Amino acid sequence: MLPDKLRVLSTLLARLPGVGEKTAQRFALYLVQDNTGLAARLGEVLSLLPAQIRPCEQCGNIAEVDPDDRAECDICRDPRRDSELLCIVGRVADLIAIESSGAMRGRYFVLGRLLSPLEGIGPEELPLERLHHRIQKDGVREVILATPPSIDGEATALLLGKELGREGLSISRIASGVPHGGDLEFADRITLGRAIGGRLRLESR
Amino acid sequence: MLPDKLRVLSTLLARLPGVGEKTAQRFALYLVQDNTGLAARLGEVLSLLPAQIRPCEQCGNIAEVDPDDRAECDICRDPRRDSELLCIVGRVADLIAIESSGAMRGRYFVLGRLLSPLEGIGPEELPLERLHHRIQKDGVREVILATPPSIDGEATALLLGKELGREGLSISRIASGVPHGGDLEFADRITLGRAIGGRLRLESR
Repeated sequence: MLPDKLRVLSTLLARLPGVGEKTAQRFALYLVQDNTGLAARLGEVLSLLPAQIRPCEQCGNIAEVDPDDRAECDICRDPRRDSELLCIVGRVADLIAIESSGAMRGRYFVLGRLLSPLEGIGPEELPLERLHHRIQKDGVREVILATPPSIDGEATALLLGKELGREGLSISRIASGVPHGGDLEFADRITLGRAIGGRLRLESR
Repeated sequence: MLPDKLRVLSTLLARLPGVGEKTAQRFALYLVQDNTGLAARLGEVLSLLPAQIRPCEQCGNIAEVDPDDRAECDICRDPRRDSELLCIVGRVADLIAIESSGAMRGRYFVLGRLLSPLEGIGPEELPLERLHHRIQKDGVREVILATPPSIDGEATALLLGKELGREGLSISRIASGVPHGGDLEFADRITLGRAIGGRLRLESR
């Protein structure tokens, strides 16, 4: 029913995360009926994007491409960051979340993917060589494993813990437990088990 | 936290229907990290879109622009369609839904918007002049009001019924009632009221 060109657009939009065929068609119809120039503007920005923004060559965070066609992100470039402390995350979105907490004063390394036995993603598909290189180059002494507390995230943290343990680094895993403002009554068993297992001793004076 | 260029992209994506700030940021991050060329391809298609697809000059349906820079949709161009029967819809998506039912053999007219007292959209913002022109030009004799059975859709149908009634046309409104496969137990009161009020007499032989 859609003209060919709109169907092409719709198929491309359906590749965005969480967008199904129906939603993609809705986006396509909206874009073609909009008369504020949204399609043209989006088209322009998207066309220029690959030349302007790329993963940071150091850490995998998104970075603006500089005039020498190199991409280094604001965090890797910031001399006030503690380069001996490295936080390893799965995705850029996780890096952004941690950054916005203000709790991290070191640098990051984005894996880009997690181990996933179910999806057939094994250790050889993780950028371990780049990670080792980064650790040596920056003289990293402490690593925080901030992959998510999911099955794949835990498997990845386990692997990284073994891999990096050999290098004599101080390694920690982010805490998992009942979230701030969360209700114990509605927390699942695994979360509660972790909240108990990972309890912190209160110092008595 | 996002680089400026990615924030611009995110802001544009947030103008798509049903897309909030978080989702737009997720789309933007996905597009910049994707390495299959999705951003460039989408950029190309979107940039060309305004010159290739426009609302049909007859009915407002989406149409491919022809070499003479005119836009006439497949339905308006199809000589087998009954030009005396006109179905008036609110949006192109509704036209597509009706077309896919196969129940309409006439042509369409897309209003593009509905009357909405709450949003301050009055009769002067509906394309009534273009509608009258279309009706006269095509020699329309029967009109089906297929605006949705919502408050705005009903208000629009009421207005159009009055407007077009003066022209001596046969006018009908699409049926509203319990949907096919629907459960009476879970239907709301208004829908049940309409199902009863709009009941069809069964012919006894």
